[in-house]
Amino acid sequence: MTERTGPGRRFDYKVFRYIGTRWSDNDAYGHMNNVVHYSLFDSAVNGFLIESGALDIKGGAEIFLVVETGCRYHTEMAFPDVVAAGIRVARLGTSSVRYEIGLFRNDDETAAAEGYFIHVNVDRMVRRPVPFGDVARRVLEPLLVET
Amino acid sequence: MTERTGPGRRFDYKVFRYIGTRWSDNDAYGHMNNVVHYSLFDSAVNGFLIESGALDIKGGAEIFLVVETGCRYHTEMAFPDVVAAGIRVARLGTSSVRYEIGLFRNDDETAAAEGYFIHVNVDRMVRRPVPFGDVARRVLEPLLVET
Amino acid sequence: MTERTGPGRRFDYKVFRYIGTRWSDNDAYGHMNNVVHYSLFDSAVNGFLIESGALDIKGGAEIFLVVETGCRYHTEMAFPDVVAAGIRVARLGTSSVRYEIGLFRNDDETAAAEGYFIHVNVDRMVRRPVPFGDVARRVLEPLLVET
Amino acid sequence: MTERTGPGRRFDYKVFRYIGTRWSDNDAYGHMNNVVHYSLFDSAVNGFLIESGALDIKGGAEIFLVVETGCRYHTEMAFPDVVAAGIRVARLGTSSVRYEIGLFRNDDETAAAEGYFIHVNVDRMVRRPVPFGDVARRVLEPLLVET
Repeated sequence: MTERTGPGRRFDYKVFRYIGTRWSDNDAYGHMNNVVHYSLFDSAVNGFLIESGALDIKGGAEIFLVVETGCRYHTEMAFPDVVAAGIRVARLGTSSVRYEIGLFRNDDETAAAEGYFIHVNVDRMVRRPVPFGDVARRVLEPLLVET
Repeated sequence: MTERTGPGRRFDYKVFRYIGTRWSDNDAYGHMNNVVHYSLFDSAVNGFLIESGALDIKGGAEIFLVVETGCRYHTEMAFPDVVAAGIRVARLGTSSVRYEIGLFRNDDETAAAEGYFIHVNVDRMVRRPVPFGDVARRVLEPLLVET
Repeated sequence: MTERTGPGRRFDYKVFRYIGTRWSDNDAYGHMNNVVHYSLFDSAVNGFLIESGALDIKGGAEIFLVVETGCRYHTEMAFPDVVAAGIRVARLGTSSVRYEIGLFRNDDETAAAEGYFIHVNVDRMVRRPVPFGDVARRVLEPLLVET
Repeated sequence: MTERTGPGRRFDYKVFRYIGTRWSDNDAYGHMNNVVHYSLFDSAVNGFLIESGALDIKGGAEIFLVVETGCRYHTEMAFPDVVAAGIRVARLGTSSVRYEIGLFRNDDETAAAEGYFIHVNVDRMVRRPVPFGDVARRVLEPLLVET
């Protein structure tokens, strides 16, 4: 997934979103189910995009579709933990972007889980890729990391 | 469900928990799905109980089981709203409690939705009702409202 | 919620939908979380409406909004149980309908949980109530029960 | 993720589980949210393991923890589609296994999405890896594919 070795740390990420866990995040093993991490990825990145003006869920002519996702799990988390979701951009193409997200449990400095997902910018109606507009590019470029 | 008429207001509730919405809370109609409200009820009340020392998910000899729930929906909410969940106790019996929860959208003073659920305190193993212990009672009594 | 006493039985319901449980339905107590029941209500009723031609999620001029829901829990269920969701209509008004749903665990004859929800038929754009059309009425009337 | 090129087909998988979609699987874009695919992976594989006698959620001395997951999305799915989840084992080690899952929309012969996850067999109490027992190995070996 990524060539970096070992769990990442907070300074490996550019912006953070804080997400409370929910009772239903815990599964039968009493820890946050592996599926929930992806829900946090989605919420962190889309929340950032909406507040930055780069995404308008209802009215925008373009939307972002997810074409690939992945996650590695290092440490268990559980409700009622609070999760800090760090975001960085590993690759920014003409119409696609690779986000990498680190999930940090409460005050931990080392990531409990790390994942990525690839967004493709598409026309809402025909769902075909179109180049990022100026706003999206201006919002995403500062998140780029050297890899 | 409740005899109070019209949507409640913040001063009708005793304690508040703040819960961020998630991308997946929005359904095909672009608003928070009616099911999600119950997930917020669960998270608000159980989060309060855990932090108050009245519930130990993993180790406690007693757990709370839900026997009845209900909700009325007044106003649509949607990701990325933040929800303030107000909690009060409407009835506190020997081994059961009726919580009422008001969900307030962002800074709204009037509830977007109001619901309740009834917890029964049971022995974890045999799952039969047992009277609330001192800690639970001390935590719940201050939330009681005149009805 | 309902004046009927005791858990309902299969013959109390008019049509059935079969829904597999999922790993994530089980919560930290190892049983289906109380929130999931509402997801099954939604899926059973909307699945029935779509297949009956009474609901077109994407293109219909009218949609159904949920204004009130409730549930009583009689027996625990858990993944990998299969749930039979029985549906009946308790009240059919000009623009609103009260569904009652019984959830039956595997081959059980007695309901594990029973709930209801009230749909209001609204114009998709302005989200104001409009009378049911002929198709919806023709689909819902056969589900009416004497109460 | 996998070296196979292009979406897989049904004959690429060894056993199938059929999973109905739910209303809440559709997100604001009107299609199955990317997170839900992982919930189907979990349900397909664990459902298979439970019915095969290789997993006892409540009583087993060993449980399976997920250490890595991934998914590629080829085609949109949406409620009320029915999903056929094909399962194969790509690698079976001493105490870990890599499952690959193809999700097929309704009667499609070509996968709508393909993913994997890696289970590690651990002692339930200390959560340290232990070698698979005879039952697990007997259940998993027939799912192995040449790669």
